[in-house]
Amino acid sequence: MTAETTNAASAIHAREFFASCRALIDSELDRLIPKETAEPTRVHSAIRWSLFAGGKRFRPALLLATGQTFGAGLDDLLRTGCALEMIHTYSLIHDDLPSMDNDELRRGRPTCHVKFDEATAILAGDALQTLAFQTIAEDERLSPDLRVQLISEIARAAGTPEGMVAGQAHDLDAESCDVTNDELERIHHRKTGALIRAAARCGAIIAGADERELEAVSKYATNLGLLFQITDDLLDVTATAEDLGKTPGKDARSRKATFPAVYGIEATHAQLEVVHRAGCDALEGISPPSQLLRSIAKFILQRRT
Amino acid sequence: MTAETTNAASAIHAREFFASCRALIDSELDRLIPKETAEPTRVHSAIRWSLFAGGKRFRPALLLATGQTFGAGLDDLLRTGCALEMIHTYSLIHDDLPSMDNDELRRGRPTCHVKFDEATAILAGDALQTLAFQTIAEDERLSPDLRVQLISEIARAAGTPEGMVAGQAHDLDAESCDVTNDELERIHHRKTGALIRAAARCGAIIAGADERELEAVSKYATNLGLLFQITDDLLDVTATAEDLGKTPGKDARSRKATFPAVYGIEATHAQLEVVHRAGCDALEGISPPSQLLRSIAKFILQRRT
Repeated sequence: MTAETTNAASAIHAREFFASCRALIDSELDRLIPKETAEPTRVHSAIRWSLFAGGKRFRPALLLATGQTFGAGLDDLLRTGCALEMIHTYSLIHDDLPSMDNDELRRGRPTCHVKFDEATAILAGDALQTLAFQTIAEDERLSPDLRVQLISEIARAAGTPEGMVAGQAHDLDAESCDVTNDELERIHHRKTGALIRAAARCGAIIAGADERELEAVSKYATNLGLLFQITDDLLDVTATAEDLGKTPGKDARSRKATFPAVYGIEATHAQLEVVHRAGCDALEGISPPSQLLRSIAKFILQRRT
Repeated sequence: MTAETTNAASAIHAREFFASCRALIDSELDRLIPKETAEPTRVHSAIRWSLFAGGKRFRPALLLATGQTFGAGLDDLLRTGCALEMIHTYSLIHDDLPSMDNDELRRGRPTCHVKFDEATAILAGDALQTLAFQTIAEDERLSPDLRVQLISEIARAAGTPEGMVAGQAHDLDAESCDVTNDELERIHHRKTGALIRAAARCGAIIAGADERELEAVSKYATNLGLLFQITDDLLDVTATAEDLGKTPGKDARSRKATFPAVYGIEATHAQLEVVHRAGCDALEGISPPSQLLRSIAKFILQRRT
């Protein structure tokens, strides 16, 4: 096989994997989230509006991929995957609020506070975070010991001082001033990287991976998170509104810290390759076959939406 | 002893208990929450501003009281108590936001979004909720099995469809229309009652109380929560701003659902006695001495702030 056909096979592999994960996760989320007709209907409708808005389910898919790589069964992975998606979606709902990023469009649809109202969006986000931790705490397929490990892992990735909330706070502070390269990486490691890293680690933890394997997975996922963020920043500059489902160029206009803004577009493209390679290199340290994880890295590298 | 001296002794007992709990909880919270100097400093300052604003620590004190009643050690109870206070404080920060209750003053000080800004207040609340669940998940004094039980208990009391967020959503909906007696009780059972009930139950769960005892504690705490809410509503009508540390009469002006608004002041006072008695009666069903829990009920009944 030539490198080109390997790439193509790899991309198809990852695309199919994502599609099947998405169907599984969506159906489990539908089971876990109260129906729109359940009181309080407005909050439940808002949760479902944002949770079923066509997200790629990247974090749950990554959790499923690492879990399966290390031999865990799908059923043992599914609920923690859903919990991660709930945390991710709560953060999108809150980040979109007028006092935060003030976004009116996401995935081609009005954001939660536009479709409903601000109070409902705040409550929907709050309830989703609660439900995420409840879902893991009540997942009787996993031992209590495993459940508290997973909750701790995800909480550290989602909160402060090293997680998502800390990253979002830093990002808001950085909006009106120039950031250094180091600061930019620090913002992204916490704002988006931490939860992506937690996704990969949780899959491996559920599968019972050892410390050395967890270390390799963490390194892989840290690079994958960076790859995801850099491609996101590049797409904001180069893609059309139709591709993105949101207004492109918004980051630049609001002077948000982005890789193209700090490094320029050409150097950012070069950095993509470096980060992709570093992610794949990290997988050399594990014994199970890692094609799926490599396909995912390639898929992110080549993504157009 | 006459009934009057019993009441006085009882009130002193509860007052001293609350004071000692408050010192313990405050010092443990100080240990658990990142310092104001830790990045992101603004979010951590905002968390500390709201968390150390002179709150009564009612929920942690109740948890400590039920836990000690059923024989648990203080050290085993402390962190779950702190977690409850974190959940309570996150809800106050978010409820005070302009799009929610729009309160500018709490406990005599500017609310979080007034002192800082809305984005910081949203993030501070989000981070506090995360840290609450992390604190329990990482409390190595308790078995993992106990920790997941506690997280599930608190999550159900804090989220939807039966917890605090559901109650706040229902309360916002009710602002512009008349509510029935049943609706009013339903709002309060979820908005404030659920977490108070969870506080009492968590103490008993940590102490290893059996199902029958948990049932008695739940009934006691449900009435205690109602007592707390009714006295709160009455104080809003009768107390001065200085006593309350907030603007009195605000509930009536915003047409919030309150007991005096629905029943009138006289009938509300009568209801207080009924609810207090029901709470104490529930304690007949447990074997350990229940003076402390009775003192707390009396203390709430007589509170002036």
